[in-house]
Amino acid sequence: MLNFKFKNPTKIVFGKDTISTIGSEIADFKVKKVLLVYGKGSIFKNGVYDTAVSSLKNNNIDFLELSGIKANPLLSKVKEGINIVKENNIDGILAIGGGSVIDSSKAISAGACYENDVWELFEGNGKLLNALPVFTILTLSATGSEMNFGGVITNELEGKKWAFGSPLLYPKVSIIDPSIQFTLPKIQTVNGAVDIITHVFEAYFDGVKNTDMIDELCEGIIKTVIKHSKILITDPKNYNSRCELAWASTLALNGLTGVGRHGDWASHDIEHSLSVFNDISHGSGLAIIMPAWMKYVYTCDTAKFAKMAKNIFNIQGDNNETLALNGINELQNFYKYLGAPTTLKEVGVKFEDINTIANNASLLSPMGSLKKLEKQDIQKILQIAFE
Amino acid sequence: MLNFKFKNPTKIVFGKDTISTIGSEIADFKVKKVLLVYGKGSIFKNGVYDTAVSSLKNNNIDFLELSGIKANPLLSKVKEGINIVKENNIDGILAIGGGSVIDSSKAISAGACYENDVWELFEGNGKLLNALPVFTILTLSATGSEMNFGGVITNELEGKKWAFGSPLLYPKVSIIDPSIQFTLPKIQTVNGAVDIITHVFEAYFDGVKNTDMIDELCEGIIKTVIKHSKILITDPKNYNSRCELAWASTLALNGLTGVGRHGDWASHDIEHSLSVFNDISHGSGLAIIMPAWMKYVYTCDTAKFAKMAKNIFNIQGDNNETLALNGINELQNFYKYLGAPTTLKEVGVKFEDINTIANNASLLSPMGSLKKLEKQDIQKILQIAFE
Repeated sequence: MLNFKFKNPTKIVFGKDTISTIGSEIADFKVKKVLLVYGKGSIFKNGVYDTAVSSLKNNNIDFLELSGIKANPLLSKVKEGINIVKENNIDGILAIGGGSVIDSSKAISAGACYENDVWELFEGNGKLLNALPVFTILTLSATGSEMNFGGVITNELEGKKWAFGSPLLYPKVSIIDPSIQFTLPKIQTVNGAVDIITHVFEAYFDGVKNTDMIDELCEGIIKTVIKHSKILITDPKNYNSRCELAWASTLALNGLTGVGRHGDWASHDIEHSLSVFNDISHGSGLAIIMPAWMKYVYTCDTAKFAKMAKNIFNIQGDNNETLALNGINELQNFYKYLGAPTTLKEVGVKFEDINTIANNASLLSPMGSLKKLEKQDIQKILQIAFE
Repeated sequence: MLNFKFKNPTKIVFGKDTISTIGSEIADFKVKKVLLVYGKGSIFKNGVYDTAVSSLKNNNIDFLELSGIKANPLLSKVKEGINIVKENNIDGILAIGGGSVIDSSKAISAGACYENDVWELFEGNGKLLNALPVFTILTLSATGSEMNFGGVITNELEGKKWAFGSPLLYPKVSIIDPSIQFTLPKIQTVNGAVDIITHVFEAYFDGVKNTDMIDELCEGIIKTVIKHSKILITDPKNYNSRCELAWASTLALNGLTGVGRHGDWASHDIEHSLSVFNDISHGSGLAIIMPAWMKYVYTCDTAKFAKMAKNIFNIQGDNNETLALNGINELQNFYKYLGAPTTLKEVGVKFEDINTIANNASLLSPMGSLKKLEKQDIQKILQIAFE
């Protein structure tokens, strides 16, 4: 186990009928006026908007709105939010949505307190010294953004989908009411499950040794996700399974799975470049990219892939090579069972696009920890992922 | 899963050679003068005292000392600490030790800001509105006190060993350098392992259903503790195993194993009364009491005890009753293997003392969640524990 520091100050309020507490939670922080950020408007259908707004009003918290955040959220929208905040004395952000909305809200929170262009922070230039408090009501369990300090935004002008993080951006309070996910389209539950599993494997397969305790947590999260996402694709209103998936999702990327190790994150970096050029969801991209990455790199730590096969997929055997390959295969089979795509071809990517995607991803190369990937490695992974 | 709130703001600094950072961590909180609280002086032998004091001096942090905190820490000592703090303008507490030292430090931190007798808070009277910041350097992984807000103190005049907690008492920063545990006497490592396992089972066996994700974490912690405590009793300087045990210990009682459920805690309550009258360590007491409690209550949730047998001890079988009993037996065998006592008789308790212990524990009855225990239940559990 490597030396580490861990601190996560986000308050989680979890369970049925908790959304109506958002106003008092925000009032505890003396915030007077929030920017309410959301997506396409599903929060009107499921009643979340009304409950939240009424709670804000009951607590005398004023608000303006920024709607229309889309999947793979855009920098232009973030900048629109920053302008609204600056022009209206807004002192807090309330995100109601999934990872795209929360990530956009974090970027707005940072950008509103940063004197230059907020994209500088994504480029690794500049230092964030202050941020507005972010509050969230989670409507889709997937990214873990409700309890971490990071976010991913697409700079559509420059064709870059990049991440940024700062301890200033931990949400102050996140409300997770799993019952509001009853009405999610099946594909969103599936994408969420894939995203959660991928987050955990990004930590798990980084080549760092002596990580038993954290591996136990990692394996436990994935087993929970597999069990309950299978239930939810046929019984989407199963409250217990919604709870299990939701809490697994938060634990998967709140820092706990990453302590004492580096993490790999190459699959995420490659997927980001894939979805810069192709309008596919992050979850679909990850279902395609990570198993291909696994097939390309597993020989760097065959024993660990064999451990996955045994402990997560309950595959028996003595030969690590066989176990490793069977484990990867079983992961792909599970994704197919859920209905997630597993090849680039399926989602309409052409073979000749691979070079463009690899070029874009290689802006961040060398990437990864288990195996340091250069452009030619990324190309090969994309070729494996093709069909 | 039940509704829950979770927030744990403690910063953990984990790993080799991290103790020398304590001064700058404390300075970040603008604290100028700490009360340095410790036990019998092992911190002089292993160099921790010198490293910490030198770090305080380098950061211009003044300090006074309170030494001699013993296992099952006493209220009189807490009051001595409170007086020193009040008389000397001390604005922070630095605990260097295990759970007894940290719990005492939390009580001092609370008592120094509370206008009446600090014991009122343990009695459940009065409300804590402020507390001094507590910092810790952990020297024994066992209680989890380094990352939670609770503590247990013995009021020796009234014969009560009771708990108190407040979110104000989360340590601000806890430093965990597992390498300083190389020189612990074997029995302390063993007691720590038993304490960790018991904390997890107090959460695990509370009768609340639909707790898959948290059960995975619980089982993972216990499997890690079993594996690495076995290593450490023959190879106490194994750094990797010290790390695994240390992080498992912190995770076992930092709130994560308790979300979405009640917890039981009857075994802890009974053990506290046992060690009020008998000078035995908390770990030894728990090794004796919890398996006896299990034998008395398992029929309230036989399937869960069978799950423990299968998932933790890898016992095969179809009959839940048999699995449950074999699982409990295996836990006791593991404690015996470590060298922990498993009967009251072994630690010198007389059969006729059972009534006195049960009387004391029943001050808190009904206790427990899986089965509500009254005095006669506690007596029966102590009888089972006798030999």
